[in-house]
Amino acid sequence: MRRTLNTTLAEHVGEPVQLEGWIHRRRRLAAVTFLVLRDRSGLSQVVVSDQAVRAALDGLPEETVVRVTGTATANAKAPDGVEVIDPVITALSAPAVGAPVELWRPHLDAALPTLLDHASLTWRHQERRAVWELAAASLRGFRATLDAAGFTEVATPKFTATATESGANVFAVDYFGRPAHLAQSPQFYKQMLVGVFERVYETGPVFRAEPHDTVRHLAQYTSLDVELGFIADHRDVLAVLREVLAGMVVAVAEHEDACSRAGVEVPVVPEQIPLIHFQDALHLVGADPDEPDLAPEHERELSRWALREHGSDFLAVEGYPALKRPFYTHPQPDDPRWTNSFDLLFRGLELVTGGQRLHEHGDYVTALTARGQDPGDYGAYLDTFARGMPPHGGFALGLERWVARLAGLDNVRRSTLFPRDLHRLTP
Amino acid sequence: MRRTLNTTLAEHVGEPVQLEGWIHRRRRLAAVTFLVLRDRSGLSQVVVSDQAVRAALDGLPEETVVRVTGTATANAKAPDGVEVIDPVITALSAPAVGAPVELWRPHLDAALPTLLDHASLTWRHQERRAVWELAAASLRGFRATLDAAGFTEVATPKFTATATESGANVFAVDYFGRPAHLAQSPQFYKQMLVGVFERVYETGPVFRAEPHDTVRHLAQYTSLDVELGFIADHRDVLAVLREVLAGMVVAVAEHEDACSRAGVEVPVVPEQIPLIHFQDALHLVGADPDEPDLAPEHERELSRWALREHGSDFLAVEGYPALKRPFYTHPQPDDPRWTNSFDLLFRGLELVTGGQRLHEHGDYVTALTARGQDPGDYGAYLDTFARGMPPHGGFALGLERWVARLAGLDNVRRSTLFPRDLHRLTP
Repeated sequence: MRRTLNTTLAEHVGEPVQLEGWIHRRRRLAAVTFLVLRDRSGLSQVVVSDQAVRAALDGLPEETVVRVTGTATANAKAPDGVEVIDPVITALSAPAVGAPVELWRPHLDAALPTLLDHASLTWRHQERRAVWELAAASLRGFRATLDAAGFTEVATPKFTATATESGANVFAVDYFGRPAHLAQSPQFYKQMLVGVFERVYETGPVFRAEPHDTVRHLAQYTSLDVELGFIADHRDVLAVLREVLAGMVVAVAEHEDACSRAGVEVPVVPEQIPLIHFQDALHLVGADPDEPDLAPEHERELSRWALREHGSDFLAVEGYPALKRPFYTHPQPDDPRWTNSFDLLFRGLELVTGGQRLHEHGDYVTALTARGQDPGDYGAYLDTFARGMPPHGGFALGLERWVARLAGLDNVRRSTLFPRDLHRLTP
Repeated sequence: MRRTLNTTLAEHVGEPVQLEGWIHRRRRLAAVTFLVLRDRSGLSQVVVSDQAVRAALDGLPEETVVRVTGTATANAKAPDGVEVIDPVITALSAPAVGAPVELWRPHLDAALPTLLDHASLTWRHQERRAVWELAAASLRGFRATLDAAGFTEVATPKFTATATESGANVFAVDYFGRPAHLAQSPQFYKQMLVGVFERVYETGPVFRAEPHDTVRHLAQYTSLDVELGFIADHRDVLAVLREVLAGMVVAVAEHEDACSRAGVEVPVVPEQIPLIHFQDALHLVGADPDEPDLAPEHERELSRWALREHGSDFLAVEGYPALKRPFYTHPQPDDPRWTNSFDLLFRGLELVTGGQRLHEHGDYVTALTARGQDPGDYGAYLDTFARGMPPHGGFALGLERWVARLAGLDNVRRSTLFPRDLHRLTP
């Protein structure tokens, strides 16, 4: 017999069915035992009346994997109006042991270290699993939007001889006896590939040796990187970002069941994301006009403002000071103290960094020299700009941050399958 | 004016158009100069008659980025029957300098080191670019097939405390002062996540410190990983692999233009991929029956046999000896010298490794102990199998190998954007 998924059981009323999944919960009453079975689609209810089967089930703790054959039967009182009766239950695994959490409870109240130490188990919880299902949906929406817009997916090297952004926060690797670094971002490579494909994206791990233990930094996260050529300035990049976010939101919203389990309020992406200049943003939050960056509390304050004034969960801040942006950042043409770059805030958190890049070889040499760096250290990356590169720009979006804010989670560790940080290298 | 892509020029005959791209080739005749422009869609022809414009064009070498405005005009002798006349040409980059290869030539005859040293430039060549476009199409087909089959995409940690397969060929990282390794595969994590999502996949970089300099090994490659629960045995895994390959081939074939530029003969994936037992495979190629593995020349010989006997570019070999497979491999139930594992050969090369895994905690303890390993070293991975895991299995497919065989390339470095090997850490 072919397997039936729990959520399609109602299509088989009156028929023999075979279910497979995890014992989610057993409730032993006087005359019957209710078995709630969990599979990737959801839950179903199995009614066990036979005394021998009930006795056998007593020996199969929650999380044991079983096959259930029986008859799908309509019952208005059962979930989805259907349940399985007269079951034969076959264990597909040895009886499960030692669960440190009760996965059948509606909410998992475990402390963060317990959640993370037992990640392979705690992700089985329906609420938690929904969080990652929305991450997967977001990836799908991201790629679908870009594929439709003529972007090419690329795969870039994670071993580099040169650190991307600065010398700080890089992981050192022994590369066949030579020193190397793990890539902090695909930045250099996605720019070089604009010269090949014009429009590229990559979804993959990036590595930051973050020495700080915060709720929003990890040593590895999934970066959704985009880069495109033939732009006028960073606002063309923002327009693509707007489309990408809209595509991600559509994919998330399609997964209604997971949105409901994860308690997600699906955001609306405005046709035009509200945009404010960095100088005005500082003024708005009453910060010192010489501040070189926005503090986390400023980002939260600005997000509240965008929601209040523009009804938007998203706010773009453009024009960040040149001194705080990487050397490849394009200056603001009318005032080079500022740049054609932006951050995107989503519900109080910096989610995306992007902007226009320099595209002329000479400008790179000038920018690097002004920072006291040797252009010769940048090899093939820098050479590329002498070989004809269009005006271009791009952005990077942190997947786990996006999902954390989407689901209202207070720590990016809760939206990362197996987080890696200063203290955590397992599981 | 909005930009027109080269390959849509024929839709605009008689209209003013604006093209943007790279100067692919200039041909100066007595009265006119032909400018061939390249963009992400392909080539177009621009006819320059104005003497001042011709003189200006003389100063813009091949690969310079330009904007061309002019009139699209039908001309039966032009490529696609259309060309642009009366152009105004604006440089969008400084004149390109120093190209070590001539990208306008139909074939790029450069030696491999030149190709790789100047990768950001040589990938611009139409033949070469087509190769990676087929890699991107393959990724699309891979994910589309699995998304439709209820798989969830996952993202697993690349820093691990334990080496996945064995202690060999791992890269060491300084992880905040602690020793760690780069993941050789997502194997442990994808298995753990079968307990959560039942069916998972990941596309991402894996890291092998390959000490050998061969045409088919790299220090980093893109692994397409799949794992699924509730299987009977490895043949259920092979059935999913068959669907995935078929989906990848469809996506590749849809990109007709790239197939043609890359000289790809699109393979047919048979309804049933021919399957041979390892023992029979050894016999067929006349190898010693005690050989523990297939040598590269055996793989080529077996592929020729599959093509001859079954008309198939694909051949699955099942039952590899237990001694040569990792500890998590499920034995062949009727004879534990062999395993429920397989390799898939494609046009003479091992492309995929897969099989059924152990799923009972006790079996893992036995298998590790028999190999002289301490089960205690495997922490949360091993614990997962005590918490209810279904029979499961999966496979891993090397993207760059797939594309290399698809395009008939003799070295996997030719299908990798920026290869990393024993000697190469740049660009």
